[in-house]
Amino acid sequence: KMLGRVLCTVLFVGAFPSPAEASQGHISVVLLGATGDLAKKYLWQGLFQLYMDQVSSGHSFTFHGAALAALEPGQRLMFDVLKKLSCAPDEAPNRCAVLKDQFLKLSQYHQLKTAENYTALSREIETLLRQEGLREAGRIFYFSVPPFAYTEIARHINSSCRPPAGAWLRVVLEKPFGHDLHSAQQLATELAGFFREEEMYRVDHYLGKQAVAHILPFRDQNRQLLDPIWNRHHVERVEVVLKETVDAKGRTSFYEQYGVIRDVLQNHLTEALTFLIMELPANVSSAQEVVQHKLQALQALWGLERSSAVLGQYQAYSSQVQEELQEARGHVSTTPTFAGVLIHSDSLRWEGVPFLLTSGKALDERVGYARVLFKNRAYCTQSGTLRDAGHSQCKPKQIIFHFGHGVLNTPAVLVSRNLFQPAMPKDSWKEAEARSDLHVFGQPLSDFYMYSPVKERDAYSVLISHIYHGRKDFFITTENLLASWAFWTPLLDSTSRQPPRLYPGGVENQHLLDFEMVSGGVAFTLAEPAELLSPRGQMPSDFRAIQSKFRQSPLVSAWAEDLISRLASDMEEAALRSVARSGQFHLALSGGSSPVVLFQRLARHHHGFPWRHTHVWLADERCVPLTDSESNFQGLHRHLLQHVRVPYFNIHPMPVHLRRRLCVEEDRGAELYAQDIAALVANASFDLVLLGVGTDGHTASLFPRAESGLDGAPTVLLTESPVKPHQRMSLSLPLINRARQVFVLVLGRGKHDITTLLSRVGHEPSKWPISGVSPSSGQLVWYVDYEALLG
Amino acid sequence: KMLGRVLCTVLFVGAFPSPAEASQGHISVVLLGATGDLAKKYLWQGLFQLYMDQVSSGHSFTFHGAALAALEPGQRLMFDVLKKLSCAPDEAPNRCAVLKDQFLKLSQYHQLKTAENYTALSREIETLLRQEGLREAGRIFYFSVPPFAYTEIARHINSSCRPPAGAWLRVVLEKPFGHDLHSAQQLATELAGFFREEEMYRVDHYLGKQAVAHILPFRDQNRQLLDPIWNRHHVERVEVVLKETVDAKGRTSFYEQYGVIRDVLQNHLTEALTFLIMELPANVSSAQEVVQHKLQALQALWGLERSSAVLGQYQAYSSQVQEELQEARGHVSTTPTFAGVLIHSDSLRWEGVPFLLTSGKALDERVGYARVLFKNRAYCTQSGTLRDAGHSQCKPKQIIFHFGHGVLNTPAVLVSRNLFQPAMPKDSWKEAEARSDLHVFGQPLSDFYMYSPVKERDAYSVLISHIYHGRKDFFITTENLLASWAFWTPLLDSTSRQPPRLYPGGVENQHLLDFEMVSGGVAFTLAEPAELLSPRGQMPSDFRAIQSKFRQSPLVSAWAEDLISRLASDMEEAALRSVARSGQFHLALSGGSSPVVLFQRLARHHHGFPWRHTHVWLADERCVPLTDSESNFQGLHRHLLQHVRVPYFNIHPMPVHLRRRLCVEEDRGAELYAQDIAALVANASFDLVLLGVGTDGHTASLFPRAESGLDGAPTVLLTESPVKPHQRMSLSLPLINRARQVFVLVLGRGKHDITTLLSRVGHEPSKWPISGVSPSSGQLVWYVDYEALLG
Repeated sequence: KMLGRVLCTVLFVGAFPSPAEASQGHISVVLLGATGDLAKKYLWQGLFQLYMDQVSSGHSFTFHGAALAALEPGQRLMFDVLKKLSCAPDEAPNRCAVLKDQFLKLSQYHQLKTAENYTALSREIETLLRQEGLREAGRIFYFSVPPFAYTEIARHINSSCRPPAGAWLRVVLEKPFGHDLHSAQQLATELAGFFREEEMYRVDHYLGKQAVAHILPFRDQNRQLLDPIWNRHHVERVEVVLKETVDAKGRTSFYEQYGVIRDVLQNHLTEALTFLIMELPANVSSAQEVVQHKLQALQALWGLERSSAVLGQYQAYSSQVQEELQEARGHVSTTPTFAGVLIHSDSLRWEGVPFLLTSGKALDERVGYARVLFKNRAYCTQSGTLRDAGHSQCKPKQIIFHFGHGVLNTPAVLVSRNLFQPAMPKDSWKEAEARSDLHVFGQPLSDFYMYSPVKERDAYSVLISHIYHGRKDFFITTENLLASWAFWTPLLDSTSRQPPRLYPGGVENQHLLDFEMVSGGVAFTLAEPAELLSPRGQMPSDFRAIQSKFRQSPLVSAWAEDLISRLASDMEEAALRSVARSGQFHLALSGGSSPVVLFQRLARHHHGFPWRHTHVWLADERCVPLTDSESNFQGLHRHLLQHVRVPYFNIHPMPVHLRRRLCVEEDRGAELYAQDIAALVANASFDLVLLGVGTDGHTASLFPRAESGLDGAPTVLLTESPVKPHQRMSLSLPLINRARQVFVLVLGRGKHDITTLLSRVGHEPSKWPISGVSPSSGQLVWYVDYEALLG
Repeated sequence: KMLGRVLCTVLFVGAFPSPAEASQGHISVVLLGATGDLAKKYLWQGLFQLYMDQVSSGHSFTFHGAALAALEPGQRLMFDVLKKLSCAPDEAPNRCAVLKDQFLKLSQYHQLKTAENYTALSREIETLLRQEGLREAGRIFYFSVPPFAYTEIARHINSSCRPPAGAWLRVVLEKPFGHDLHSAQQLATELAGFFREEEMYRVDHYLGKQAVAHILPFRDQNRQLLDPIWNRHHVERVEVVLKETVDAKGRTSFYEQYGVIRDVLQNHLTEALTFLIMELPANVSSAQEVVQHKLQALQALWGLERSSAVLGQYQAYSSQVQEELQEARGHVSTTPTFAGVLIHSDSLRWEGVPFLLTSGKALDERVGYARVLFKNRAYCTQSGTLRDAGHSQCKPKQIIFHFGHGVLNTPAVLVSRNLFQPAMPKDSWKEAEARSDLHVFGQPLSDFYMYSPVKERDAYSVLISHIYHGRKDFFITTENLLASWAFWTPLLDSTSRQPPRLYPGGVENQHLLDFEMVSGGVAFTLAEPAELLSPRGQMPSDFRAIQSKFRQSPLVSAWAEDLISRLASDMEEAALRSVARSGQFHLALSGGSSPVVLFQRLARHHHGFPWRHTHVWLADERCVPLTDSESNFQGLHRHLLQHVRVPYFNIHPMPVHLRRRLCVEEDRGAELYAQDIAALVANASFDLVLLGVGTDGHTASLFPRAESGLDGAPTVLLTESPVKPHQRMSLSLPLINRARQVFVLVLGRGKHDITTLLSRVGHEPSKWPISGVSPSSGQLVWYVDYEALLG
């Protein structure tokens, strides 16, 4: 065969590996989608670069372009691409010409369509190697194909194209890896049926960008100087930004399905952020440690809410969609082309530090960067003139990883001169000329130590080299991918119906897309200018707080998120009123999953809540240790108490765990709790009791057909639940009904039936305990979301 | 008498009050120290202004200058001053001349030296009023005399010069009001023997400065816009600054006793700060509310430590002192002429916001201001060029109360244009021309809404008007004064031996006095340049950590503050080691007063302490409810636990209060605690026990001659204390001795005797329980301060 001959020729050219040197074995690279855009633009060039770099490594190579096209046209298309390959400018022209010639000879086109095609390819490789007396080191399959084709290709490779035992398989996957958590999980599960985790290399090309790839080494090499300041005490904010000037024209069929968050934030910007905020592993070259620390950093991020993001769409987008997708003229797309997202981490290191991720199309400039801005902790005693000079401590302090483009038009690492002079690896980064006529973030470049790469390298050629070296930390593991989707999916869901702000595009955007952090979220700074509003007739109404009556009591209803925000505000108001009246606020809270979002909202948004004067009681508890994850108190602690400043003495968990045993009658826990209430709560009348409703109509831990607790004395009692854990402690109905206010929160479609039922029945606590809630001299308010109310 | 005639003349001049209009009564103003510097420079002019403003008010006036000098020379000196009085430029020259002539005629000199002199003055006033048929409204005595003269003058006024019943007395006092808490209390007590609180007007002339006096009205009139942002979530820092170019030359005899903190920070800057940070009263014109809120703001400030301040002294100061005070040539003064102080408030509103107070002599410019800098919460999507334009939200946001001098050279209120346009009272403040060639804090004036007074008024004339109107909120109440001294005195004490950094003075200071916030305190940014160091041979050594042995165990010794800081670091290290080893850190703490400073230091400086993994236990407890101020746990909570994030489940108060009764044997609290320890602490071996020592040799709550707890089983027990509250709960010695580490902290001169004794005795726990502390397989370290060790 031709290929065999070529290989022999190549192997015996003087300057190149002799059979002895080639004892490392042979590597076959199969590029699937060999004639597609990505392959044309980056991948072949990256493979050629790999060949040039590794030609003396002891490995021999063959390169197999593959696509669906038949042999002849495919071959022609592919070799048109290969002819345009080029060497780096510093390569000797002679060597370049020889290497390119060899590379062409080692490359071959294959039609890969049917199972037989794959079997044939595998057989071809084996035959060749046998002929040449070469050991097989491994096979690389690079998937540069649309995601719908993944499964079939994966199946063929797994069943017909695996290398023999002793040689490795590496499959390289290109995004998109799903469009939300569910689809990503599905895809991951499918792939897991064909490949082992260590065989998969998911590409995020940002990890091949030089400035991104240098974040961890930079943190490592400047560990001693950074360690004391790389935390919430010193960092004011972290920004990760990718601004584009182009729009989505010509790509709307793809873009309509993804939008800016899936396209850029979920992957590229999240990856860069993760490198900045992850705990630094002791050994940054250990792929395992890096991957593990990245995962932990992702998992420590606070859940996103609708208010965590501002979304925009350039004005021409909708008409581009109409045109390219043949949509009706009135069609309105809500796909965001701009997003600014505020992210917080729960880690001790970063608590309270805002991370701002921003990206958009049709903006005023093309630039990408990650920027760590430090707090100004200095007071400069000298006057303004002196203050602006030299390395003044009063100037902003920042570290910028400049991905590319922008005024610098090169990857770069910048460190404010009043911070420190960083250690940089001299072989790969050089100090750049600090032009004082160029400014970044309002400061002249001369205010920075600035470094740029000795040799600029394309991200794909970097990553192809990492695939060759098996450096898995430059790729996205399945766990990492799913953690990222788990983080982003709730935002995608909650904003899917939200009309993005329209913007004209380019410099005309002016301040229209500026946003700011307000009460835990972000909001555009300027009010929406009326002239940009498009007809929104078809938009689903996304906020209507219905207010009326339910069971003769006031009803507040809205979509869940708005409802929770309203409930939290009402609770703060009740608390402030109560503290103004009596100096205290006695609040009894229920467990369960519904209040979790409420607790989080209270902790994050209600800084004026008088926690110091609030007593927190439980409406009910499960008979498990307080530290058990099933404990109501544990949930309350995790989502609320540990984030706010309620004095220890004001926290009243139910004593279900006494003498190291659970809810034993003779330990009289319920009685103790009743005594505490009597001693501290005036008239045993709580200022506010927050309740939920079970699908069976239970509330607190008062269940249908309970033998006690539904009438009689206001007390605390042990009860029995039909579901595990069976033993419970609960306030009795008469005690609940002494409260000044009772709020009942009902969330979700699962509660629609009971909600409907309750709207029809009267006072029948023995059938539906919740129907017995009726404060004797207080107020009852129902907070029911649209899903529970309307189904 | 001449004065009588004058008064008649004045009263009957057509344009001026007729007897009917004068029915408000007569006011006598007595200026003590009438020929002194302050009187010459401000007070007479202020009194003349008062006269001009109030000539038609219905009150009649006489002005009595007084001093120790005899009548004739005193009179001459005083009238030399009065002749130079001037009217405001907008006053009609005719009216000015007439008024000045009348003012001179209403003014008279008195020698006030003996009791008789005072009696004579009082009689003169009474006679005059009787003759003129005038009712006496009140008397103002303005003390412009050195503080040593206060008591005697006060006694004379009280005994011989009080106005008759129905008329008021107002005595006006000028600082200094003591030089520390003790002397201020003394002076206040003395004055209280002569005057009622409402009779005393303590002047801080800063409260008369227009920009300072407008802080509260500004906050009130812009309440709606400021309310949401006037807090820790939005304010980055508050600066209150007074920079002077002059030095102390010619005034060192005063200055040596005071220094910059007493001279400027304790009073002027603290007052301005208080107006900024106090809760805004519902009614800002209610003097009572204002004074009360000011007091609360002062009381909410964190105690200052030595590390809260940086101190400097201009280089020529010591030689000026040597010259002016005839000190020996080698004499070194430690009086600071520059101070930068970091202050924190414990209020919910300001928690974590740094307040920086700075003042100094011989600096590069003369300027005074209070500045509230807001956090930058915006992200500006547009590029640099646009970002710098107009009202961009990315520019700094600040509000500046400019007291005077500086580039503006006028009192002013400045509000960043990207913040809001403030409401300002049109009759007293006018919008000023925003010159873009002038810059403040690096921003052109055109970035601000800027207001200056319609009419500039001298602080003293403002205050004299307030005295006349009885506006007590413009003066310092006794409570307020003492609260301020209580706040500043610990810093004065702890820095009194500290050599200030020397600085050359003027622009040559360069960055030498720049400082920054580091781990809870402040420090100069630049290392001290060697060439400025003076010979410090005579300076007391202020830091030597002795390390040796005490009772065969390691001893760490230093001055208390350094010792605490070392102990806190050692504890953090032990905690980190323990968490690394076992994932947890079991810490048992003692009560008492010694650990308070330690707790504060841990809370404020040790952000890396692994609190989430720390279990906090008590070594002993008093049998009082946990919320009682005597409870060890309450102290621990107040000074430590409420400031850090120990999970609720990891906090283990001793169960001294069960079933709402205290330490009843049958409730088996001690047994419960021992069970908890056995269940949670591996091998019942605490990772660290922190103990103290009583003067009787007790430790934890194990007292000499105790019947149990000194040997036997490792347990928890009820004990008896010789002092109240008698009932205690304590870990037993055998339990303590199971610990991996035991640290014993001994502080203060009061512990010197027991320390000396313990250094000599052996293992005799029944006499001195502390001598029985000897961890069986752990380490014991003694932390004893110099006072306890050396007496």
